[in-house]
Amino acid sequence: MTEHVYKQIELTGSSTQSSDDAVRVALAKASKTLRNMHWFEVTETRGHIENGQVLHWQVTIKVGLRIED
Amino acid sequence: MTEHVYKQIELTGSSTQSSDDAVRVALAKASKTLRNMHWFEVTETRGHIENGQVLHWQVTIKVGLRIED
Amino acid sequence: MTEHVYKQIELTGSSTQSSDDAVRVALAKASKTLRNMHWFEVTETRGHIENGQVLHWQVTIKVGLRIED
Amino acid sequence: MTEHVYKQIELTGSSTQSSDDAVRVALAKASKTLRNMHWFEVTETRGHIENGQVLHWQVTIKVGLRIED
Amino acid sequence: MTEHVYKQIELTGSSTQSSDDAVRVALAKASKTLRNMHWFEVTETRGHIENGQVLHWQVTIKVGLRIED
Amino acid sequence: MTEHVYKQIELTGSSTQSSDDAVRVALAKASKTLRNMHWFEVTETRGHIENGQVLHWQVTIKVGLRIED
Amino acid sequence: MTEHVYKQIELTGSSTQSSDDAVRVALAKASKTLRNMHWFEVTETRGHIENGQVLHWQVTIKVGLRIED
Amino acid sequence: MTEHVYKQIELTGSSTQSSDDAVRVALAKASKTLRNMHWFEVTETRGHIENGQVLHWQVTIKVGLRIED
Amino acid sequence: MTEHVYKQIELTGSSTQSSDDAVRVALAKASKTLRNMHWFEVTETRGHIENGQVLHWQVTIKVGLRIED
Amino acid sequence: MTEHVYKQIELTGSSTQSSDDAVRVALAKASKTLRNMHWFEVTETRGHIENGQVLHWQVTIKVGLRIED
Amino acid sequence: MTEHVYKQIELTGSSTQSSDDAVRVALAKASKTLRNMHWFEVTETRGHIENGQVLHWQVTIKVGLRIED
Amino acid sequence: MTEHVYKQIELTGSSTQSSDDAVRVALAKASKTLRNMHWFEVTETRGHIENGQVLHWQVTIKVGLRIED
Repeated sequence: MTEHVYKQIELTGSSTQSSDDAVRVALAKASKTLRNMHWFEVTETRGHIENGQVLHWQVTIKVGLRIED
Repeated sequence: MTEHVYKQIELTGSSTQSSDDAVRVALAKASKTLRNMHWFEVTETRGHIENGQVLHWQVTIKVGLRIED
Repeated sequence: MTEHVYKQIELTGSSTQSSDDAVRVALAKASKTLRNMHWFEVTETRGHIENGQVLHWQVTIKVGLRIED
Repeated sequence: MTEHVYKQIELTGSSTQSSDDAVRVALAKASKTLRNMHWFEVTETRGHIENGQVLHWQVTIKVGLRIED
Repeated sequence: MTEHVYKQIELTGSSTQSSDDAVRVALAKASKTLRNMHWFEVTETRGHIENGQVLHWQVTIKVGLRIED
Repeated sequence: MTEHVYKQIELTGSSTQSSDDAVRVALAKASKTLRNMHWFEVTETRGHIENGQVLHWQVTIKVGLRIED
Repeated sequence: MTEHVYKQIELTGSSTQSSDDAVRVALAKASKTLRNMHWFEVTETRGHIENGQVLHWQVTIKVGLRIED
Repeated sequence: MTEHVYKQIELTGSSTQSSDDAVRVALAKASKTLRNMHWFEVTETRGHIENGQVLHWQVTIKVGLRIED
Repeated sequence: MTEHVYKQIELTGSSTQSSDDAVRVALAKASKTLRNMHWFEVTETRGHIENGQVLHWQVTIKVGLRIED
Repeated sequence: MTEHVYKQIELTGSSTQSSDDAVRVALAKASKTLRNMHWFEVTETRGHIENGQVLHWQVTIKVGLRIED
Repeated sequence: MTEHVYKQIELTGSSTQSSDDAVRVALAKASKTLRNMHWFEVTETRGHIENGQVLHWQVTIKVGLRIED
Repeated sequence: MTEHVYKQIELTGSSTQSSDDAVRVALAKASKTLRNMHWFEVTETRGHIENGQVLHWQVTIKVGLRIED
């Protein structure tokens, strides 16, 4: 009962809006096929530049999924 | 005079709004009992997920406090 | 043709608004003298505190510049 | 023949008994659906606390699986 | 309500029995003066040696405490 | 459109020829079942030794795959 | 008896003299209010510059304190 | 007199029993030829898997030996 | 005379041939404008993939340049 | 006004006197051509040995320079 | 029988040919005096530069040796 | 001829004088039995405290020794 097992996967989302939004984009897309996502941890924040401005943010997260019985 | 001594503590704040706001929440709470907080450094950005969305952001910071004479 | 060479420099921007904005400030200033900035990676997020509030965010980024032929 | 390819996945197991047991729990659950697990490496040891005692250990491992031909 | 703030402290416990027991010793001692300890993370496992045997294990943990309102 | 989401997986390839070849072996095997592999990053280079010579190289890579819509 | 518990705190001292002296300054100040400091470990060495010279050294140390019974 | 010099060596022990026992096995074997082992630090915990169970634990430690005068 | 000062810069070279060749490409390009490059250290090895094959290797190096008097 | 931008460069100084002096040597040389150096951080301390003695210390620092408007 | 103990040593080999060859050079030299070398792991890849070209590669490896009974 | 092989060992020296002196103490002791020590790198700086003062500095270094033909 308390002995849950989790699998951790790594996703990279991107957004033209903000670094936080890149996380939301990654989770929204992943939630279409993955169930039981419980937590995330940001492991890398990058981005592309065009004309001296942030074209889009790219944030990589580790996501913990509970494996169902 | 220039030989100040600082103590560093580690705090984790959480917010449903944004990762930046989680930092502000941690500082606001800590400022009720701690004086002389001077700088912070983000050491970890995590969060909880519900239904494929960020339920709340959890950001851990190191905070430098000047020790008073 | 595909064998481009990049140089990576490290910049620290600051902003009273947000951590993302500190990145934008660094890129805007650097773009006045540097051409061909292509990508960035956040390596450190810090800030100064005054009266328990974030006075300004300081974000350090590595920026990749393509060396022209 | 000697040129095997492995995939590495990351799992978190938990146990009220011991940190070693949390590894065993993760492997036992994973072995129901995964074949060819060959080695593991502990990457994080955490736990939850209740009344000053360890409620359960949470150990994260990387597991190497041989990809079959 | 969901915007709890945690403080993280670092403790080192020692035990002649086992590495897990060194964690339990640290938590038992700390719980005499600290309330609201919620989680821990092992950051270092060391020990002393005498006559080729482990004299005692020394395990360092980060402990998260919820700051009360 | 610009908001692609990537998944990162970790593979270990081995080769008797060279460390670069171990990367190629991992990608060739993975490409039989995975589509949309875009980039890789080397995270570990190891090998086995026999009679003072490299028996085979073992290189671990993170591979980024674009998740299709 | 051998099962001591230690708490680790992080301090930053500064000195116009030398990096070693910055450690001594931090310990001298801390010893006014803290008892039972047993060991330290240097975690960061920084400094401020004025006119191309070191204005003062800033050294951060972890200090281990034995928790008394 | 207080100015001892230590040499640090790295050993990997294995055990079918537990991760702690793998440390004891490494020390027991090393103590047959090495004198003056004083402390150790765990640097890696791995293991081999067979049929979804831990076949044996492999723990790597750094060991500090005092160099005799 | 023995008190040389070096500046370290970071470059990323790419090559369709091999990871070693990506280093050579970076140095060849940099040597057109930089004098006194003395040593390098590889800090990252990445690459792009097309149809399951390495399209080109991208290797990042730190290069030490002696500052002339 | 408060939104300064800094560039960080990496320098290695050497000295036959002491590790602190190697930092001073690097700053003295760099100050001949660089203005606005504000802070430094030690990232590596090495040295060369001759006849069992330190021939010279080599210390690498990151230096933050304020970019002028 | 399964409870082997390994010792890990660190070697640096150099080669004018390639980074892989620097590993082979280190192993070939070490095998003249060391028996039972089983595996290696690359921990650093450096090199010296002359006239904008790689003069020789310097690769550091950890080597695992089985301690004989 | 240019293809030298080096072995790296790890030593910890201590001194009541300074952190630099702890390095010198380690090298002086090691030079009694080891030939061909060429370079060192500081990997850890610690110390013991008594009455709020540094009792002695403990500095750990990696030392590179050229293996003779």
